[in-house]
Amino acid sequence: MILEDLARALEVKLYGEATQSIAGLAPIDTAGENELAFVVSAKYTNALRSSRAGAVIVPASLRELAPGNCLVSEDPYASYAQASWLLKPAKVTSAGVHDSAIVDKSARVSASAQIGPGVVIGTNTMIGDDVVIGAGCCVGADVRIADGCQLFANVTVYDNVHLGKDCRIQSGAVLGSEGFGYARTAQGWSQIQQIGGVRIGDRVHIGANTTIDCGAIDPTVIADGVILDNQIQVAHNVHIGENTAIAGCTGIAGSTRIGRNCQIAGACNIVGHITIADGVVINAASLVSRSIKQAGRYGSGMPLLSEQAWRRSFVTLGKLDQLVRRVRKLERQDVAD
Amino acid sequence: MILEDLARALEVKLYGEATQSIAGLAPIDTAGENELAFVVSAKYTNALRSSRAGAVIVPASLRELAPGNCLVSEDPYASYAQASWLLKPAKVTSAGVHDSAIVDKSARVSASAQIGPGVVIGTNTMIGDDVVIGAGCCVGADVRIADGCQLFANVTVYDNVHLGKDCRIQSGAVLGSEGFGYARTAQGWSQIQQIGGVRIGDRVHIGANTTIDCGAIDPTVIADGVILDNQIQVAHNVHIGENTAIAGCTGIAGSTRIGRNCQIAGACNIVGHITIADGVVINAASLVSRSIKQAGRYGSGMPLLSEQAWRRSFVTLGKLDQLVRRVRKLERQDVAD
Amino acid sequence: MILEDLARALEVKLYGEATQSIAGLAPIDTAGENELAFVVSAKYTNALRSSRAGAVIVPASLRELAPGNCLVSEDPYASYAQASWLLKPAKVTSAGVHDSAIVDKSARVSASAQIGPGVVIGTNTMIGDDVVIGAGCCVGADVRIADGCQLFANVTVYDNVHLGKDCRIQSGAVLGSEGFGYARTAQGWSQIQQIGGVRIGDRVHIGANTTIDCGAIDPTVIADGVILDNQIQVAHNVHIGENTAIAGCTGIAGSTRIGRNCQIAGACNIVGHITIADGVVINAASLVSRSIKQAGRYGSGMPLLSEQAWRRSFVTLGKLDQLVRRVRKLERQDVAD
Repeated sequence: MILEDLARALEVKLYGEATQSIAGLAPIDTAGENELAFVVSAKYTNALRSSRAGAVIVPASLRELAPGNCLVSEDPYASYAQASWLLKPAKVTSAGVHDSAIVDKSARVSASAQIGPGVVIGTNTMIGDDVVIGAGCCVGADVRIADGCQLFANVTVYDNVHLGKDCRIQSGAVLGSEGFGYARTAQGWSQIQQIGGVRIGDRVHIGANTTIDCGAIDPTVIADGVILDNQIQVAHNVHIGENTAIAGCTGIAGSTRIGRNCQIAGACNIVGHITIADGVVINAASLVSRSIKQAGRYGSGMPLLSEQAWRRSFVTLGKLDQLVRRVRKLERQDVAD
Repeated sequence: MILEDLARALEVKLYGEATQSIAGLAPIDTAGENELAFVVSAKYTNALRSSRAGAVIVPASLRELAPGNCLVSEDPYASYAQASWLLKPAKVTSAGVHDSAIVDKSARVSASAQIGPGVVIGTNTMIGDDVVIGAGCCVGADVRIADGCQLFANVTVYDNVHLGKDCRIQSGAVLGSEGFGYARTAQGWSQIQQIGGVRIGDRVHIGANTTIDCGAIDPTVIADGVILDNQIQVAHNVHIGENTAIAGCTGIAGSTRIGRNCQIAGACNIVGHITIADGVVINAASLVSRSIKQAGRYGSGMPLLSEQAWRRSFVTLGKLDQLVRRVRKLERQDVAD
Repeated sequence: MILEDLARALEVKLYGEATQSIAGLAPIDTAGENELAFVVSAKYTNALRSSRAGAVIVPASLRELAPGNCLVSEDPYASYAQASWLLKPAKVTSAGVHDSAIVDKSARVSASAQIGPGVVIGTNTMIGDDVVIGAGCCVGADVRIADGCQLFANVTVYDNVHLGKDCRIQSGAVLGSEGFGYARTAQGWSQIQQIGGVRIGDRVHIGANTTIDCGAIDPTVIADGVILDNQIQVAHNVHIGENTAIAGCTGIAGSTRIGRNCQIAGACNIVGHITIADGVVINAASLVSRSIKQAGRYGSGMPLLSEQAWRRSFVTLGKLDQLVRRVRKLERQDVAD
């Protein structure tokens, strides 16, 4: 791809050689003459000055520091994201159902879909145009996978799961597993049937080994544009609002509603039956133990200490209420003085 | 199903039309004329009064508030769990081994078992009556899967794993993976063979992507009636006692023994080589760093704060021992006064 | 195997009957006459004295307490690890590609490799000598799996992942899934292509359902001799140094560099873009929120309390800064006195 065409596709302004050819991406410090790099902030000024990249995407404020060709963008990171797809080598895929796949005769699979080796597709399931289903995926009955979705190898989809357009599901993800719903009885735990299914919107991305349980009666809902990282657990009847992003290893307990445009960092634990407002940002490893009614940043999570300091603080934490009582006593004596 | 038959099956008392037909379940606020709902407590009085459900399961105390048919139960939630199975549409499954499954000739598979597409079953393995093994499951050698078990798609079972009757294993679960046992040597980590296998009792439910390691020499043991949610990690030689319930994302380190009838919330981390008594309840996201000798409720885990408050508390936590010393000093001065 | 041969192979000194036959391993308290046990410390003196084991591996200091045959080792645990492999019953495996496996014609598979049922192998992939790939594994394009590796059933390997010699990958692991890299735009999240692949050294062990994302541009790197337990999440562009061991359920966010010979306990959460020095030891369930520049032990994580005490400390934690201010006020008054 030549730089002129790239600039036009990205809708950014080009300073430099229009015919410079760009073959791929690279970090600013190692990019060579046919590679594209990017710099977001003045923090990387030195790397930018000495870069040998074929072109660099920069904000206007850094344009004069670029030693060679540059593309000036209002949002260099977003332009870079876009460029990463324009420069992607087209993968040779071919439509059709692999000989070894087992597709129920009641399923409807678009002629432009690609169904990989060993894939199993159940009754009454619909697979849309240009869908790619990787090797070893198991897709249940009454499933809808809309146009443009990609499932990587070894994804499992239970019955009654609907995926909107252009979703992207990484390997090992499980969609629609039975929610953890039990009644306690004298004879032990009695499971409650989980029949609500899962409704997933358009452009939802789901990470490797992430699990999304089906709802008990109503569905579990993931709205348009949500992005979920690896090893996230979404329990039954959770709702996640549009464009919310959640990082790896976070767990969300049953029936919790998360708003739109939230950003939840890794390893958080969000308890069940609470509501989180739109636009909430939560720091890594937080325990979200109550509803959050206002947008803003929140956290819990302990600071890292040397083991010696940690052991001391550990002991104190177990006696914090005593410390409070001691301070109260001192305060009373002060008043008495 | 008509209401009279449902009441008889649930062993509850019916008030209303014996011939009302019930086709499915629904929440109290949306249930229609052929649907069954339930109400546990007076909290839902308004929803109950205005419900259009074909019937509602209620405790005796709420019977008079029900606008239509009702089923009076001592434990409405348990009755509802039971009803959820009675009203489940019978899934058409058919016994037999799918053509694409690969079953070792030394394995014994009951004629009433259903072995799905692409399933692999190893040497000397026994599969009991009415067992259902979903597509893509890999079952190793010397495995016993007793009558009535259901494995959903893409479950992995290593060699030497025994499952009791009526177990239910969600997709992506791994049973019998090698325990994390290594000796440190001058040349690096030296793995210790893990040959103890896994022994799982009757009616054990295991969630999606949960992993249970095999024991080092003796087996890892999950007793009858245990229910495990998704993404739980059970390390080698752990014992989990009867009817204990564990919620998602909890990890249990090696050789720990958990008692009977415990309830462990999500995202807990339980260290190795400890013992937890029967009847212990642990709150979400707790670090269980020591043995628990008495039944009761326990927790650790930080409260969620606004980021501003969290940053302040974060700094203080790192200096808690200094705060204790300052208070002690004040106390001494008080005495001196 | 007779004791004399075992002692020679382990390079330890034998006290007792050279011709005693040993067939397997067992714990010190249950080992029978053809079984080998081990004792590391004086803590197990009673069990050692009354043991009926065919032989016991002991340190020199405990030799005289052994009632029967013993093998004296400078490091009994390491000798035991070694013995566990010598005594392992040889598993009958047979080289070759199973009829049901689907291997792209451009892939090169060693004649001594064993490719299980239902395995899928992509274009230009190379599989080395004596590699064992379990049933249901999906291996992408441009993958290198060096001599002696073992992949258990249902492992997923994306394109452009290289594994060194003698790696061991447990079921459900996903290697090379797309890193979680997105730019925020007015239209929502824009994914950045993840093309860096994964580079894994020799003798790396990876646990069940562990996920390792590919790098964005440069690879994610796991150095020689690293051992990773189950359900670990390794984000894009993480580097893990030689011989570092990480226990289950730990998550490592993007671009973090972990040194050599570190030991990280279970359920830790390590934030992104930080550096951890060689030889660092981190306690269970710690939040590693900053770089660690010096070897040593570190921790965070709250002590477990009874629920009553926990509720009190919970309240106090939210008001720690107020407590500090109250103490400061008392100190000022003291000075004023």
